[in-house]
Amino acid sequence: MQTWINGQPAGGIAVADRGLAYGDGVFETIKVRHGQAALLERHLARLVEGCQRLYIPCDLQILTSELHAYMQQLGDGVCKLIVTRGAGQRGYTLPEPCVPQRILQASAVPSWPASYAQQGIQLFNCQLRLSEQPLLAGLKHLNRLEQVLARAEWQDSAYAEGLLLDAQGRVIDGVFSNIFIVAQQQLLTPKLDRAGVAGVMRAELLARAVLAGIEVVECDISLEQLQRADEVFTCNSLYGIWPVRAYAAQYWPVGAVTRKLQCLIKDLVDE
Amino acid sequence: MQTWINGQPAGGIAVADRGLAYGDGVFETIKVRHGQAALLERHLARLVEGCQRLYIPCDLQILTSELHAYMQQLGDGVCKLIVTRGAGQRGYTLPEPCVPQRILQASAVPSWPASYAQQGIQLFNCQLRLSEQPLLAGLKHLNRLEQVLARAEWQDSAYAEGLLLDAQGRVIDGVFSNIFIVAQQQLLTPKLDRAGVAGVMRAELLARAVLAGIEVVECDISLEQLQRADEVFTCNSLYGIWPVRAYAAQYWPVGAVTRKLQCLIKDLVDE
Repeated sequence: MQTWINGQPAGGIAVADRGLAYGDGVFETIKVRHGQAALLERHLARLVEGCQRLYIPCDLQILTSELHAYMQQLGDGVCKLIVTRGAGQRGYTLPEPCVPQRILQASAVPSWPASYAQQGIQLFNCQLRLSEQPLLAGLKHLNRLEQVLARAEWQDSAYAEGLLLDAQGRVIDGVFSNIFIVAQQQLLTPKLDRAGVAGVMRAELLARAVLAGIEVVECDISLEQLQRADEVFTCNSLYGIWPVRAYAAQYWPVGAVTRKLQCLIKDLVDE
Repeated sequence: MQTWINGQPAGGIAVADRGLAYGDGVFETIKVRHGQAALLERHLARLVEGCQRLYIPCDLQILTSELHAYMQQLGDGVCKLIVTRGAGQRGYTLPEPCVPQRILQASAVPSWPASYAQQGIQLFNCQLRLSEQPLLAGLKHLNRLEQVLARAEWQDSAYAEGLLLDAQGRVIDGVFSNIFIVAQQQLLTPKLDRAGVAGVMRAELLARAVLAGIEVVECDISLEQLQRADEVFTCNSLYGIWPVRAYAAQYWPVGAVTRKLQCLIKDLVDE
């Protein structure tokens, strides 16, 4: 399906767009089934927060109506939504007036091996350490060179995802996932106020776990804590939950809490 | 003058380009006079280093020949050169094959008040703290949200530039300039191995200062050191050198070393 820019089919974006010049924008990657978005409110909430924190004016009403029309035509697939600050003169000063660009792109849902969700994955040990920037932490903004470099660290398909720490050795997230651990019946996931992307599946899982009576904690998690954990898993909005069966010298069976959470989000993952 | 993409006039870049998706590329902003680039070798050296560190294949011969042809047509102005990794599928994995895109854009040389270079500027005290990422430090890559947010901190035109520190309070650079201080007849400028952009004018100044018998040191510089310095100035390849006459509660006259350096780079700045 063709790309839309501001509601109209289009192939290219102006070279003067600050999305290209500075990565000056935010994006969402939305799973679409039968023309409907999973976790739509969470995607839009994060997008709006991103625009606010970057001072990008965002007309949510127009954006939502374009998104619905696009997803209707798409039917099934992945819809990527980008909002950039739009064109600017040379230099970092915010353009005045600011005319943000809304871009909608479609792709097929990636087909990962079924074993990832069933038997679990092996996590690569990324050497790159995520930098700390509280002003950008949590957002799905377009400055993603750290993820590009981290993903380039391994080619071996034995690793489905890579683990990212910050310079202090705290666990932050995966290259394209969030990380959870289970320790003493508690579900723990890293705080994302200094680095990392606050995934919509992460947020949904935290909410559903609480409703299911599981104790959840957002906190600093050291690599040692992860290695000593009873269970480890990754999640994102496209694939749901992948148990981690191996990281460095550590091996885990798929745990009971992980399986329970997989059941709790079955409606979001099954085709 | 129209934009060129890969040597051909073009207005837009593919939405699937990773320059837009992830800020996955590098750029140079080159001052052009009579069809010739100032500091061309330094611009190209930094671009090549950026491409190497980001694993972007870069055909320097084609790029240089396109650049020369473009500058010839431009005559006088600013030429912005962007190299992106090119189009990719969804996801961070490096595309295979990789078809980098070479983008050339023209704009007029900005006209700053003559007083900036003559009487000096006032530096804004940016609250944003630059994050530390040694893998990206020094490069002029397309992930520039920190600069966008820092520049958005002030609207008052009394401030020509803003000073950026890292989280440890070390002086790194300006939003669009590098910073030098003079203390005890030594010329000091921040090391840029953890954050900051290594400007081509900074490199040229360091080289010319040494030739002129001035002792130069690249080192960590604290905010206190800057405040106690005998002279402070900023530089970039478009405007040359601006003495700093005021920062926070500190005031400086334009110093002798600053004036001498302005003379040393006169050929690069004068119209």
